[in-house]
Amino acid sequence: MKRLLVIGIGAGHPDYITLQAVKALNRVDVFFLMDKGQAKASLIDLRRDICERYITDPAYRFVEAHSPERERGDVDYNASVDDLNRAKQATFERLINEELADGQCGGFLVWGDPALYDSTIRILQAILLSGRCAFEFEVIPGITSVQALAAQHKVPLNGIGRSVEITTGRRLAAGQVSDADSVVVMLDAQDAYRQVADPQTEIFWGAYLGTPDEILISGRLQDVADEIGRVRQAARAEHGWIMDTYLLRKP
Amino acid sequence: MKRLLVIGIGAGHPDYITLQAVKALNRVDVFFLMDKGQAKASLIDLRRDICERYITDPAYRFVEAHSPERERGDVDYNASVDDLNRAKQATFERLINEELADGQCGGFLVWGDPALYDSTIRILQAILLSGRCAFEFEVIPGITSVQALAAQHKVPLNGIGRSVEITTGRRLAAGQVSDADSVVVMLDAQDAYRQVADPQTEIFWGAYLGTPDEILISGRLQDVADEIGRVRQAARAEHGWIMDTYLLRKP
Ligand SMILES: C[S@@+](CC[C@H](N)C(=O)[O-])C[C@H]1O[C@@H](n2cnc3c(N)ncnc32)[C@H](O)[C@@H]1O
Ligand SMILES: C[S@@+](CC[C@H](N)C(=O)[O-])C[C@H]1O[C@@H](n2cnc3c(N)ncnc32)[C@H](O)[C@@H]1O
Repeated sequence: MKRLLVIGIGAGHPDYITLQAVKALNRVDVFFLMDKGQAKASLIDLRRDICERYITDPAYRFVEAHSPERERGDVDYNASVDDLNRAKQATFERLINEELADGQCGGFLVWGDPALYDSTIRILQAILLSGRCAFEFEVIPGITSVQALAAQHKVPLNGIGRSVEITTGRRLAAGQVSDADSVVVMLDAQDAYRQVADPQTEIFWGAYLGTPDEILISGRLQDVADEIGRVRQAARAEHGWIMDTYLLRKP
Repeated sequence: MKRLLVIGIGAGHPDYITLQAVKALNRVDVFFLMDKGQAKASLIDLRRDICERYITDPAYRFVEAHSPERERGDVDYNASVDDLNRAKQATFERLINEELADGQCGGFLVWGDPALYDSTIRILQAILLSGRCAFEFEVIPGITSVQALAAQHKVPLNGIGRSVEITTGRRLAAGQVSDADSVVVMLDAQDAYRQVADPQTEIFWGAYLGTPDEILISGRLQDVADEIGRVRQAARAEHGWIMDTYLLRKP
């Protein structure tokens, strides 16, 4: 039987990794690296760096696979994600069939936690369901960017006895958010915080959390929204890409 | 200056701890242990066990403080939590003033992640605001029970491009949930999953996650709700307490 480990490596600092993840890394024969896009180089570097740091026996290898990109622009979002996931599924099947021998262990290093806005688990479940590959797999949780955000700002995510909604910039911009008094926004390509109606809303914003480039800004939207917009644009220009997350708290 | 570290230790398995937390543990002179209630003995044991396992220089000590209990029964929930937090704040102030010398480092070991349904951060911020104690503090994120749940069931928390709401059993039972298609429920003392209207809703339920007593049940509510109710009651009777969490996913 082949075995796959989906390993959350935390969302930024190499010390965010858990001991469970370190042990899992040390069981892997072949690491599949699937990054894409502008952040590619630095994120793949970080994965290699994590392996070098934490694996004691260097008898592992990397297989870098071209990860298909989602079609952008004027296309249906869900359809384009479905297309993307089908293409990824084909890539995963090929990797598992061709690059892994029976009895071997393959590893996927997932940024943050594999359960949050990541397709690896969903794709592996789809492959198992299709019956086209046989394997066992385990999921190793990792510190999410949401937790890094709260820790660095030293704020709780929830109000006392209240809910927290974790959502996307796309949904916030489209007004598809609930009335939870704490909302965490990820994957915001469009400065969706600017569309929050109440300017008294508090925002706790963080970019490149846990990395040497970390930036934190917090305050009422009326006071800091413009600053965040400027800093965000400048950082994106400087790095070529940005990863940021924020918590919105109703007054 | 006194320094405090609020250290998330993960929600179950000792290997859920991060390397950042291990480094933080090793900086602490005095650990404040604040558990209460029926789960007290075993949870305090686990904290001592974590210190023994991961701290290399045993020159630290524990201070066990009586942690006040929330008034139960027919009282206003928010008011009773406020009362509780005021009492806790007084306890924390005393500990910091009396048990920690200048230049020393105090540690709070928090189950799971300090940002999720835990009062430590809120209380320390309140103390700082009051000006009655001076200290610096850091927050170290930890793997939450929500992540342990998703990892053990090997499911993503969110649907593609969708939101996740994290909430309490109390709110679910009171109908105070949004229409998010993924809802994670914590702190459920009352089998609130029984009040979900659509019996086709999928539930991924987990108790004592990450521990040797872990129990996992999943399926449509119409098929597994009774079983979960039975297993839950039996487990609570056996252990004297239960910690469980579940993900509800709309069909
Ligand atoms: C595809 S999702 C992956 C989330 C990841 N699985 C996690 O657990 O955080 C990518 C989004 O996560 C957030 N993100 C990831 N790492 C981050 C970091 N270091 N700082 C700020 N935001 C980050 C950003 O919102 C980004 O758009
Ligand atoms: C006061 S909250 C603390 C949450 C914690 N800070 C975290 O990050 O998971 C306690 C609730 O967390 C959930 N919980 C904590 N540990 C758990 C475990 N090992 N298994 C299942 N649920 C757990 C239960 O819903 C419990 O009622």
